[in-house]
Amino acid sequence: MGSFIGHALPGTFFIMMGFWWTTKNILKSVYKKHTRTCYLNSKTLLRRIEIWEGVVVVIMALTGIAGEQFISGGPALILYKDGQWNQILGWHHTTMYFFFGLQGVTQIVCFTTNALPLSLSKLMLANAIFVETFIFYNHTHGREMVDIFVHQLLSYTTTAAGLVAFMEFLTKNNVLLELVRSSLILLQGTWFWQVAFVLYPPKGRATWNLSDIGNKMFLSMCFCWHYASIVMLIGVIFALANWLVKSRLRKVCTSEVGLLKHVDREQESEEEV
Amino acid sequence: MGSFIGHALPGTFFIMMGFWWTTKNILKSVYKKHTRTCYLNSKTLLRRIEIWEGVVVVIMALTGIAGEQFISGGPALILYKDGQWNQILGWHHTTMYFFFGLQGVTQIVCFTTNALPLSLSKLMLANAIFVETFIFYNHTHGREMVDIFVHQLLSYTTTAAGLVAFMEFLTKNNVLLELVRSSLILLQGTWFWQVAFVLYPPKGRATWNLSDIGNKMFLSMCFCWHYASIVMLIGVIFALANWLVKSRLRKVCTSEVGLLKHVDREQESEEEV
Amino acid sequence: MGSFIGHALPGTFFIMMGFWWTTKNILKSVYKKHTRTCYLNSKTLLRRIEIWEGVVVVIMALTGIAGEQFISGGPALILYKDGQWNQILGWHHTTMYFFFGLQGVTQIVCFTTNALPLSLSKLMLANAIFVETFIFYNHTHGREMVDIFVHQLLSYTTTAAGLVAFMEFLTKNNVLLELVRSSLILLQGTWFWQVAFVLYPPKGRATWNLSDIGNKMFLSMCFCWHYASIVMLIGVIFALANWLVKSRLRKVCTSEVGLLKHVDREQESEEEV
Amino acid sequence: MGSFIGHALPGTFFIMMGFWWTTKNILKSVYKKHTRTCYLNSKTLLRRIEIWEGVVVVIMALTGIAGEQFISGGPALILYKDGQWNQILGWHHTTMYFFFGLQGVTQIVCFTTNALPLSLSKLMLANAIFVETFIFYNHTHGREMVDIFVHQLLSYTTTAAGLVAFMEFLTKNNVLLELVRSSLILLQGTWFWQVAFVLYPPKGRATWNLSDIGNKMFLSMCFCWHYASIVMLIGVIFALANWLVKSRLRKVCTSEVGLLKHVDREQESEEEV
Repeated sequence: MGSFIGHALPGTFFIMMGFWWTTKNILKSVYKKHTRTCYLNSKTLLRRIEIWEGVVVVIMALTGIAGEQFISGGPALILYKDGQWNQILGWHHTTMYFFFGLQGVTQIVCFTTNALPLSLSKLMLANAIFVETFIFYNHTHGREMVDIFVHQLLSYTTTAAGLVAFMEFLTKNNVLLELVRSSLILLQGTWFWQVAFVLYPPKGRATWNLSDIGNKMFLSMCFCWHYASIVMLIGVIFALANWLVKSRLRKVCTSEVGLLKHVDREQESEEEV
Repeated sequence: MGSFIGHALPGTFFIMMGFWWTTKNILKSVYKKHTRTCYLNSKTLLRRIEIWEGVVVVIMALTGIAGEQFISGGPALILYKDGQWNQILGWHHTTMYFFFGLQGVTQIVCFTTNALPLSLSKLMLANAIFVETFIFYNHTHGREMVDIFVHQLLSYTTTAAGLVAFMEFLTKNNVLLELVRSSLILLQGTWFWQVAFVLYPPKGRATWNLSDIGNKMFLSMCFCWHYASIVMLIGVIFALANWLVKSRLRKVCTSEVGLLKHVDREQESEEEV
Repeated sequence: MGSFIGHALPGTFFIMMGFWWTTKNILKSVYKKHTRTCYLNSKTLLRRIEIWEGVVVVIMALTGIAGEQFISGGPALILYKDGQWNQILGWHHTTMYFFFGLQGVTQIVCFTTNALPLSLSKLMLANAIFVETFIFYNHTHGREMVDIFVHQLLSYTTTAAGLVAFMEFLTKNNVLLELVRSSLILLQGTWFWQVAFVLYPPKGRATWNLSDIGNKMFLSMCFCWHYASIVMLIGVIFALANWLVKSRLRKVCTSEVGLLKHVDREQESEEEV
Repeated sequence: MGSFIGHALPGTFFIMMGFWWTTKNILKSVYKKHTRTCYLNSKTLLRRIEIWEGVVVVIMALTGIAGEQFISGGPALILYKDGQWNQILGWHHTTMYFFFGLQGVTQIVCFTTNALPLSLSKLMLANAIFVETFIFYNHTHGREMVDIFVHQLLSYTTTAAGLVAFMEFLTKNNVLLELVRSSLILLQGTWFWQVAFVLYPPKGRATWNLSDIGNKMFLSMCFCWHYASIVMLIGVIFALANWLVKSRLRKVCTSEVGLLKHVDREQESEEEV
C-alpha cells in the first residue's frame, strides 16, 4: 500500500463482493416472495454458489497478500530486519487479507462438508471485519489530520458492518440486514477509491492539503454522498430484480402464481402495517 | 443556517413530525386495544396515511434544501469556489435534509408499489438520523464551548433516536418503542429552538456568554427539562386518546365491546404483571 | 448536597429501593417456581404492591427535592440571581429527583387506571436512570481527581442499570435481569455512602488526599468489593427465600406440590443444561 | 504479579479453561447433532461435569489469590501500612481472582442444589469478566506506552468476552456463541503469556523498548495472529470431534443413525441456507 494501487485494489475487491452480495440477496428475496412452491429445487444451486463465493474470496485474499508482500518494495515475508520491524504497515495489510482468506476457507469447508455449522461462515465474516477495524485503529500513528480522518471513516464503516454481520449471525435470514451489510461493504469499497484519490492524486491533479480543516469537513459530507448513491443504487437493483422475476414468472405459470401472489400480499400487509 | 431561522425551521419540522408520529401511534395502539374486531377495515386508510406522511417529509426536505442553498447567502449549489470549499456548513445541512428526503421517497415507494419491503422505510429513517448524527459530530470545529455543547446534545439525541429506530426495524410493532423514538424527535425539535434562542438571541434579549461553564451546566439541566415536558405531554395525549376512543366506541357498540375489553384486560394483566 | 447528608440521603433511598426490589423479585420468582396452581390469586395483591411502590418513590423524590432546595443553603426555587445561575448543582440534583418522581407517578397511573401500558413504568425507570447518568456526566467540572473519579463510578453504575432496565422493558419477565438491575441500584446506594465518607469524612477521621493516584486505585478496587458483597447478599436472600417458601408450602399441600415440583425440575434441567 | 510468573499463571489458567470449554461445547454440540435419541442419558453426567468445573475454578482462584498475597513480596493480606495503601496492584489481582472464585462457588451451588436458577452461573461469569475489565482499565497508571497498550488489549478481549457471556445468558444454548466466548478466553490466556515475554523477557533474550511505536504496531498485529491461530485450532478440534463421534457411532447403530442424520441434514439446510 502507501500507493494509489494499494488502496484501489482492496476497494475494487470490496465493491465486487458488495455488489455480488447485494444482487444475490435481492434475487433470493424476490424469488422467494413470488414463488413459494418451486423454492426447494434451488437448494443445490445455492450451496454451489456459496462454495464458489468462498473460492473467489480466497483468491482475492491471496492476490492481496501477494501484492502487499512482493510488489512495490513490500516486506517480502521478512518480519524483522536490521534491528527493527520490517515494513510493519505492509504486514498489517497482509494480516487483514489473511482474515478474509480465513473466512473464505471456512465458507468452503462449511458448504462442502457437514462438519461445521453453516452460520460459522457469517461469524468468521464478522470476525474478519472486526480485525480490519482493529488494525485500522492502530494503523495511522503520526500521520496528517486528513489522512487519519479518512482512515477513521473506514474504521467507522467496518465497525458498523461487523456489528451488522454479527446481528445476521444471531438472527438468521433477515434480508434487510444482509442488504445493510452489503451496502456498508460497498461503501467501504468506494471509500477506498476516494482515499486513493485524496492521498495519492493521479498526475495532473492538484494535491490535497492534508492539514486543512475545510477538506476534513468536505470529506465527512462526501462520505455521506457515497452512502446516498449506494442506497439509491440498491433501490434501483431491487426494483429491477422485482420487475424481472415478476415478468419472467408470469410467462411460466400465470394463473397459479397470480393467485399465490395475491395471498402473499395480504399476509404481508397484515404483518407489517 | 448560522441564523435564528436556520435553527427554528428544522426545529419546527421535527416538532411537527414528532407530534404527528406520537398522535398516530397512540391512536393506532388505543384503537387496536379497544376493538380487535373492526381492525381490518382501516388497512387502506393506514396505507394512505403512510404515503401522505412520505409526501410531507419530501416537501419538508425540499424546503430545507432550498432555504439552505438560496436564502441568506447560501452556497447556491456551488460546491467549490475561489480555491476553497464554498460554504461547507450550508452543504452539510443540505446533505442532512437530503437523507430525510430519501426516507420520504422510500416510504412513498414502499407503500404505493409492492416492490420494496415495508420495513425498509424504517431502516431509511434510522439511516437518515445516523447521517445527521455523523455530520453534527464533524460540524462544530473551532467554535466556542457552549456552541459545541448544544450541538453535542443534538447528536446525543439523534444517536438515541437512531438506535431506537433501528430497534423498531428489528422488532416490529412495539408501540412503546415508537413512542420513545417520537419523543426523541420531539426533543430534538424543541432543542433546535433552544439552540436558536441561545446562539442567536432575538433583539432586546441579552446574549449568552458562550464560554461560561455555568451556562453549560444550566443547559445540560435544561435539556432534561425539555425531555420531562415532552414525556408529560405524551402521557396527557395518551390519556386523552384513551378517553376519546373509549367514549366514542361506547356509543357505537356498548355491550359487545365491553365484553371484549374485559377479556383483553385480563389477558394483558396476565402477560405483563 | 455538597455535604455528608446530601450524599447519604440518596444513598439510603437507593439502598431501600434496591433491597425491596431484590426481595420482591426473589419472592415472586421462588413462589412462582414452587406453585403454579395458586398463582392467580395474588394478582390483586401484586397490583396493590406496585401502586404503593410508586407512592413511596414519589415521597422519596419529594423529600429529596425539598432537602436540596430549602435545607443547608439551597437555591430555594430561585433559578437566576444577581446575573448568574443560582446554585446550579442544587438544581441538578433537583432535576434528578424529579425524574424519579415522574417514574413513581407513571407507576401509580399505570397500575390504577388501564389507560397506559404497564411496561411504561419500566421505561420511565430506564429514562430516570439515564437522565441521572447524563447529569452526573456534566456535573463535576473543575473538581479534584478522586472527586471526579467517584462520581464517574456512579455514572458507570447508572449506565449499566439504565441499560438493564431498558432490556427488561424489551424482554419482559426475566427474573435474573431484574436482579441484576436491583443489584446495580444497591451498588449505587452503597457507593453514595462511600462517596459521602470519602469526600466529607465525619469528624475525628483523617481527610482523603483527593489528588493521590493511590487513593484512586484503591477506590476502583473498593467499588468491586461493594459489588461482591451485594452479589453475595442477594445469593443469601435467594437461598433464604427458597427455603422459607419451600418449608411453608410443605405444610399446606405436601403431596400435590411435591409432584409439581418434580415435574418442574425436570423441565428446567432440560431447558437449561 | 509484576513478574514473568505472575502473568504466566493466569495465562495458563485461562488457556486451560478456554481449551476445556471449547472441547466440552464442541463435543456436546456434535453429539447432540448425531444422536437425538440417546441424549437424555447424559443429563446426570453433564450436571456432574459442571460441578467439577466449578470446583476447578475455585481451586484456580484460591491458588491465584495465595500466589498474589504471599509469594514474591505480596501484600500478605495487609491493606494499609505506613500511611499508604500496601501493594495496591497485588490487591487488584486478588480482587480479580476473587470474582472468578465467586463464579465457581455459584456454579457449584447452582448445580448441586435447585435453589438458584442455572443460568446464574453464566451471569456470574459475565460479571467476573467485566470486573476484570474494569480493574485492568484502572490499573496501568503512569506506565510506559507499550506496557499500557498490552494491558489495553487484554481489556478489549475481556470486554468482548463479557458481552458474549452476557448474550449467552440472554439467548440460551447457542453453541457458536459459547465457542466465541471460549475463543476469547483462550486469546486472553495466550496474550497473558505474550505480555509475560514482552514485559519480563527471560534471561538471554533482548528486552523490548517499551516506548517504541514500532513495537506497539507489531503487537497490535501479533494480537490478531494469536486470534487467527486460536480460530484455526478450534476449527481443527471441531473437525476431529465430528469425525470421532461419527465413526464411533457408526459402529454402535449404523442403519438407524444414518437415517436420522439424513433427515437432520435436510432440515438444517432448509433452516440455514
